[in-house]
Amino acid sequence: MTSGTVDVFAGVEHEVPSMLREALTGLELVDHHVHGTYADDITRNVFEQSINEGSPDPVPAFMSMFDSQLGFAIRRWVAPLLGLAPHASADQYWTRRASMSSQELDSLLLPAARVTGWIVDESIGLDALRSPGDLASASGADSNRLVRLERLAESVAAECADPAEFVDRVRAAVAAESADAAGFKSIAAYRCGLDIDWSRPSDDAVTAAVSAWLRTTPADRLRTVDPVIIAFLVHSAVDRGRPLQLHIGLGDRDLDLDRTNPLHLLPLLRSTAESGSAVMLLHCWPFHREAGYLAQAFDHVHFDIGLAINFVGAQSAQVVRESFEVAPFAKQLYSSDAYGLPELHLLGSVLWRRSMGLALGEWVRRGDWSADDAVRVAQMIGAENARRVYTLR
Amino acid sequence: MTSGTVDVFAGVEHEVPSMLREALTGLELVDHHVHGTYADDITRNVFEQSINEGSPDPVPAFMSMFDSQLGFAIRRWVAPLLGLAPHASADQYWTRRASMSSQELDSLLLPAARVTGWIVDESIGLDALRSPGDLASASGADSNRLVRLERLAESVAAECADPAEFVDRVRAAVAAESADAAGFKSIAAYRCGLDIDWSRPSDDAVTAAVSAWLRTTPADRLRTVDPVIIAFLVHSAVDRGRPLQLHIGLGDRDLDLDRTNPLHLLPLLRSTAESGSAVMLLHCWPFHREAGYLAQAFDHVHFDIGLAINFVGAQSAQVVRESFEVAPFAKQLYSSDAYGLPELHLLGSVLWRRSMGLALGEWVRRGDWSADDAVRVAQMIGAENARRVYTLR
Amino acid sequence: MTSGTVDVFAGVEHEVPSMLREALTGLELVDHHVHGTYADDITRNVFEQSINEGSPDPVPAFMSMFDSQLGFAIRRWVAPLLGLAPHASADQYWTRRASMSSQELDSLLLPAARVTGWIVDESIGLDALRSPGDLASASGADSNRLVRLERLAESVAAECADPAEFVDRVRAAVAAESADAAGFKSIAAYRCGLDIDWSRPSDDAVTAAVSAWLRTTPADRLRTVDPVIIAFLVHSAVDRGRPLQLHIGLGDRDLDLDRTNPLHLLPLLRSTAESGSAVMLLHCWPFHREAGYLAQAFDHVHFDIGLAINFVGAQSAQVVRESFEVAPFAKQLYSSDAYGLPELHLLGSVLWRRSMGLALGEWVRRGDWSADDAVRVAQMIGAENARRVYTLR
Repeated sequence: MTSGTVDVFAGVEHEVPSMLREALTGLELVDHHVHGTYADDITRNVFEQSINEGSPDPVPAFMSMFDSQLGFAIRRWVAPLLGLAPHASADQYWTRRASMSSQELDSLLLPAARVTGWIVDESIGLDALRSPGDLASASGADSNRLVRLERLAESVAAECADPAEFVDRVRAAVAAESADAAGFKSIAAYRCGLDIDWSRPSDDAVTAAVSAWLRTTPADRLRTVDPVIIAFLVHSAVDRGRPLQLHIGLGDRDLDLDRTNPLHLLPLLRSTAESGSAVMLLHCWPFHREAGYLAQAFDHVHFDIGLAINFVGAQSAQVVRESFEVAPFAKQLYSSDAYGLPELHLLGSVLWRRSMGLALGEWVRRGDWSADDAVRVAQMIGAENARRVYTLR
Repeated sequence: MTSGTVDVFAGVEHEVPSMLREALTGLELVDHHVHGTYADDITRNVFEQSINEGSPDPVPAFMSMFDSQLGFAIRRWVAPLLGLAPHASADQYWTRRASMSSQELDSLLLPAARVTGWIVDESIGLDALRSPGDLASASGADSNRLVRLERLAESVAAECADPAEFVDRVRAAVAAESADAAGFKSIAAYRCGLDIDWSRPSDDAVTAAVSAWLRTTPADRLRTVDPVIIAFLVHSAVDRGRPLQLHIGLGDRDLDLDRTNPLHLLPLLRSTAESGSAVMLLHCWPFHREAGYLAQAFDHVHFDIGLAINFVGAQSAQVVRESFEVAPFAKQLYSSDAYGLPELHLLGSVLWRRSMGLALGEWVRRGDWSADDAVRVAQMIGAENARRVYTLR
Repeated sequence: MTSGTVDVFAGVEHEVPSMLREALTGLELVDHHVHGTYADDITRNVFEQSINEGSPDPVPAFMSMFDSQLGFAIRRWVAPLLGLAPHASADQYWTRRASMSSQELDSLLLPAARVTGWIVDESIGLDALRSPGDLASASGADSNRLVRLERLAESVAAECADPAEFVDRVRAAVAAESADAAGFKSIAAYRCGLDIDWSRPSDDAVTAAVSAWLRTTPADRLRTVDPVIIAFLVHSAVDRGRPLQLHIGLGDRDLDLDRTNPLHLLPLLRSTAESGSAVMLLHCWPFHREAGYLAQAFDHVHFDIGLAINFVGAQSAQVVRESFEVAPFAKQLYSSDAYGLPELHLLGSVLWRRSMGLALGEWVRRGDWSADDAVRVAQMIGAENARRVYTLR
């Protein structure tokens, strides 16, 4: 079975002007935040868990995660690539999928995403996921690497004979990574929330926090949660001039969703406005309006609505429209935040193209926007903004 | 005058596929949170106040509450059942309505809601409202009863000779009620806000709180507001394995709307995730996206957008669409939260059917969803999920 | 070049019933919160900064603010009045605009807004902006004046020989202004956030705060930021019975957006519910649902979605729809909050008319609303509510 293509405007041809349809269909995307695909075959239970972002638990017996916007989107858009009818049942889908190896699925689905640049966060799921290089070779694309700051801190801390070494070692590690990584990422949202003191801590304050951390935690169980350490990491990354990605909003229940509102970042954004480093707000739902505001208010702030687009499925046209309120168009990027299932790498692309077509297409049909402008904006958000911010070729 | 029917898809036939129209028109709903209807005839002023959820005051002279989405929806959808033209004027509507007894109105409007199961909160308006049994017999439906925890606590407290009795007496009362009530309900949102310490208090802490309460309040004016007591009540209910309903969002200005955001419940939801009891988030507007997130993140969390659907009237299609973002479809339920006016029992049903048709119908027309799936999801949300959660016949 | 007109329903004629189109096209608006236009000619950089509400910085080289919803709306709707094609390029637009004087632009654009009453906040940009009288004469309309409380306090404080004079002098100044000003305005959102203690401070507390303020600040750099002083100002204004405007939501990054949520005002609104003064929540995006709730819950609360309508451009139809949820229709007003560029005075009107047509028109086409009601509601929000609240002729 060779890679197919998805007719992303099936059923909405009359709602999207043809020029915009063609441009969006052919557009080669940069997915500026993504993970690898599962290296091994998986069970149905793992599959269903993988389409629930919020819960770490097995799906309870009374329900199926296929009965969700994302589940319906998989049956609608991915089933035909597996030789099934659109809307094939969950059981039919699973049976067919289970008959294929993870390599076959990757080969079939990844190229159909038409992504020519993946920027990969490889710091979770190391054992379970393919590497960025695998992702790139399976899809015929380039890949770049993100460095997760909390993981870097844990590696450094585990090697520190003396807590006083931590500050300099982190700075050196960040400097070394900044030479070839596309950017840095922080999951402060998961570790301490975004409502922390974002001022730059003194070296002594960091050393004291690290001392307390190392004194109370075995070296093999180090987990960066101290807000002083996290603020230090973030400032250290921003100092290097590379883009800094921050997880915002939607995530598993390990985080407090209300503490991931990007407005908590105002002090950090004010203090880094002149740094020369871009700040990239990832995902953002249900705070995407707030994220768009920050992207207008600060020259260095950018955002995406990745992850959410997959999860809201047929409702993504509205979320896309809401991402087009106050943010300048140079400040929005595309990402899928796909993890594990190649369905997610593909659907991020399919649903983004379709929703962009519906949202921008309506404005073109009504005469609010010109078709030329709509195409240009799609290209900016789909690829050009990422190429500019990350200085990709 | 006998009960009529409402053509809920009038004017939008071309927007909703016929199969979905037929299924939604005929669907027998379970309204999982509702109150009784006014037993006595009412004045126009009471009527207009009854269509303002936020304010306890008489409607000021410079305006009419008929000039609102809900007022317009009453004139559009209920007027024809009273023999008037759609969009009859407010004065025409009131004149006709005032010529009918409350029993006549109930007989005319309640059956037209096509609700076959009412789960009734009978703990407010006891003197003014008909009982669940009356509601059921007027509409030819079954009814079940909810137990409001704050009221139960007030009854128990009034009978305690010694505050030390309170804890055991509450546990016994909750156990007794759980034998035949459909579930419990807390209005913590009104009494102390949802941003409290949700950990299970010790019996001693509860006894101390009750002592202070009884010492300072006459027995006939007891009102449960202490967060320690409310946390105790909620945990006592969850311990019994029955569904627990929590008021979220939209309510009268007696509550602080920002303190009713369901994200404040995260600690409670984490600590009760393994309890076996369902947690039902009621109403939720304008926090329905957050509620949907919690319904994805926690197996035991469910939600509805009742009350809001009535109040936003013609705008309900958007609110319905927003309830279809990240929540699995097994986790949403139907309710009207109607109180007093049988118009509200009816409109909850009419507007829900119509908005579901518009929202799901658009996805079907575009090919995002199959028509079969849309019908199945409507049945889940309209009745099946409630029958499963509340173990109704 | 004489003033032209804008065909605000171009491209959406079939979506808006003709009766509603005609009524909205001809409606003479009251813009209840607006500023003057630039007195002098401006540079392109100033122009682009003027269409970014959030940032005080020059637009960075990598982008243009023309690439935003507002920029696209200017090219779509204003370009034709300057003799260009709709969607003329940014460079074409700027070249043509730069060939005209600020007076010419005012004469061309202001009358096309069809505003017959401007209520002008003249307390910022005094040197750069034309006065309310100029605005009125350029557009053939009436104008009324708002008094900004923080500025009044700074003027009074600068003249106080003794801090103990402040309280009485402010009361006298507020009383004097209330004789002929349309209302008062507070920018507490910018100065201390809305999450302050809104109880009425004692005169002694105010005097103490003023003492500290005057002791630490030169008289020519006084800036009212103390929450005690601001609460005093607000209560002093409310005491006079005139409408009080409060900035809510969207504004430049000088404010903390999360501290401008109108729900922070609940204590103030409760304590002023019986004052007889109207409270006007301005702009409100992204908290317009919350503002609408307050407008239902409190008889004296009104709101608008001005400023946001301009900034969200083609997306304004959704924001308008969301302003029609729980608020009674007597409680919403029209404003542009235009500042500096006459494009903004015009676009506020164009986009409001168009979005109202799209939102209400859909409800009329579907039969949810009657066309008569839609026209009546448009008149209420466009002018009548403002005439009632501000007691304009």
